[in-house]
Amino acid sequence: MELFEVTVLGSGSATPSLIRNPSAQLLNASGHFFLIDCGEGTQIQLRRNSIKLQRIECILITHLHGDHYFGLMGLLQTMHLLGRQAKVTLICPAELKEIIDLQNKHSQTGLSFPLEYVFTDPKKAQLVYEDKHLEIHSFPLSHRINCTGFLFKEKIGLRRIIKEKLQQHKISVAEINNLRLGLDVVDENGKNILNSELTEPPPAPRSFAYCSDTIYDERIVEYIKGVNLVYHESTFLASEIDRAKKTFHTTAAQAATIAKMSGIGQLLIGHFSARYGNTEDFLEEAKPVFENTLLAEEGKTYKII
Amino acid sequence: MELFEVTVLGSGSATPSLIRNPSAQLLNASGHFFLIDCGEGTQIQLRRNSIKLQRIECILITHLHGDHYFGLMGLLQTMHLLGRQAKVTLICPAELKEIIDLQNKHSQTGLSFPLEYVFTDPKKAQLVYEDKHLEIHSFPLSHRINCTGFLFKEKIGLRRIIKEKLQQHKISVAEINNLRLGLDVVDENGKNILNSELTEPPPAPRSFAYCSDTIYDERIVEYIKGVNLVYHESTFLASEIDRAKKTFHTTAAQAATIAKMSGIGQLLIGHFSARYGNTEDFLEEAKPVFENTLLAEEGKTYKII
Repeated sequence: MELFEVTVLGSGSATPSLIRNPSAQLLNASGHFFLIDCGEGTQIQLRRNSIKLQRIECILITHLHGDHYFGLMGLLQTMHLLGRQAKVTLICPAELKEIIDLQNKHSQTGLSFPLEYVFTDPKKAQLVYEDKHLEIHSFPLSHRINCTGFLFKEKIGLRRIIKEKLQQHKISVAEINNLRLGLDVVDENGKNILNSELTEPPPAPRSFAYCSDTIYDERIVEYIKGVNLVYHESTFLASEIDRAKKTFHTTAAQAATIAKMSGIGQLLIGHFSARYGNTEDFLEEAKPVFENTLLAEEGKTYKII
Repeated sequence: MELFEVTVLGSGSATPSLIRNPSAQLLNASGHFFLIDCGEGTQIQLRRNSIKLQRIECILITHLHGDHYFGLMGLLQTMHLLGRQAKVTLICPAELKEIIDLQNKHSQTGLSFPLEYVFTDPKKAQLVYEDKHLEIHSFPLSHRINCTGFLFKEKIGLRRIIKEKLQQHKISVAEINNLRLGLDVVDENGKNILNSELTEPPPAPRSFAYCSDTIYDERIVEYIKGVNLVYHESTFLASEIDRAKKTFHTTAAQAATIAKMSGIGQLLIGHFSARYGNTEDFLEEAKPVFENTLLAEEGKTYKII
């Protein structure tokens, strides 16, 4: 089974503190590294967790509040200083390109590697990335400024060969690709053998969604329906619901409500306000609404199943 | 004696690492806080060293390489989120204003406090700040992009009253201000008393210079002559002198040579390249040239005497 897991690098909101870093998560999808948000200090968090930053192929930024991107320039700069040559794909609001270009201009830096932009649309869901194994969709969130979430979906894989059956039916190795694709084959005596005799279905494709800063918004449900693991911000407890509304953030109970309505597998909550020392209260608030809730803990890796 | 001391917050160059932070130092001049350079993670370094960031009145940025300013947006943002109202003076290259304005525009942030800019001149020395106790001059350094150093000079203070003499000569309290200014006074019998009978000279004004990224350049000597404590970058050891020249940096021996030529009191070296684990070699290289050399250690405070 290929890896599909996410490591939390930052679990706090607004400002870095001695106990929490601003937003950043690393998704490892079959060995390919996707960095989602990049608050100040993310490159140090990568080092602290022994994640090789040059392995990151794609960086996704949800919106242009500093706690989600102030670490990006430093990370790109470090990739450059270490002599990176491989392309980085940056999926982000269009305005981020201006910010990066201006800073590179004034530092007279030409990056050592190609930086390829894909701009998110803050108004509607769209496919922003696709490779052999994975597709990524962005979708709109409701925050104080333009903000998108991201949905990572594995593609349906190839059927898995049952080796013993292959030997039993004396099927030529040349047929393996056809079998993986789901085709029936002919054995050495010319007899037709059903694909289902020789193969098992591919593993179920897995999915992960990242719902960065947003007010409680039931329109999110359509984008994350049935997803295996959803990270949803949970900046406040229900006791601060007025502040949550005012600042376009969500409470733990609200995040759990969205999870329940969406029929997802597991909910991961984070982006905790600096006012809270202890985060166990968030879990206590969310679990009665949605039992499969997990707390975002920095340095912890969550398998997506 | 009023405080005049500098705390090193970052001692490394180019990229943050698990053992060194990028450039930042905090000067405490009579209880007024001046932050010099602000690499990524500086706000966390301030917290780690229990330095109240809202007490910073003035921030000085030497040049626009990321390791000297990538922490600035985050620091300003945190000051704002904590509701700061007091003005911040930002002494920096003019282009930094564009960078800050663009990011505040795209995050739709209007800072809660006034940010007053003073632009440095990369071509010549100039007075960039003055208050009752202190003046700050910027001066040009030779780096790959425009870069300035900063010289902090205490002003000559008022003469100090010798209390016992005041009582002995029966001088009215009303005369104290005149005495502090160095004037002679008349006692209650109408007799003229020399100021030098009643007061001592003010403490000698102290000075600190910060020579950020620069190639070995003897033109610096005129700016830092006789300064009490000079921080001078020392990115490489003499064995890497070619690399130092190519990247417009300095070796430990070269920094010590500048110190010796300038007749300064003490030399503080830092901005160590990430290639060096141990920094003791820097001290070994510098001391034979200039004995009063100190290593920049993060979290350590250096009294300026």
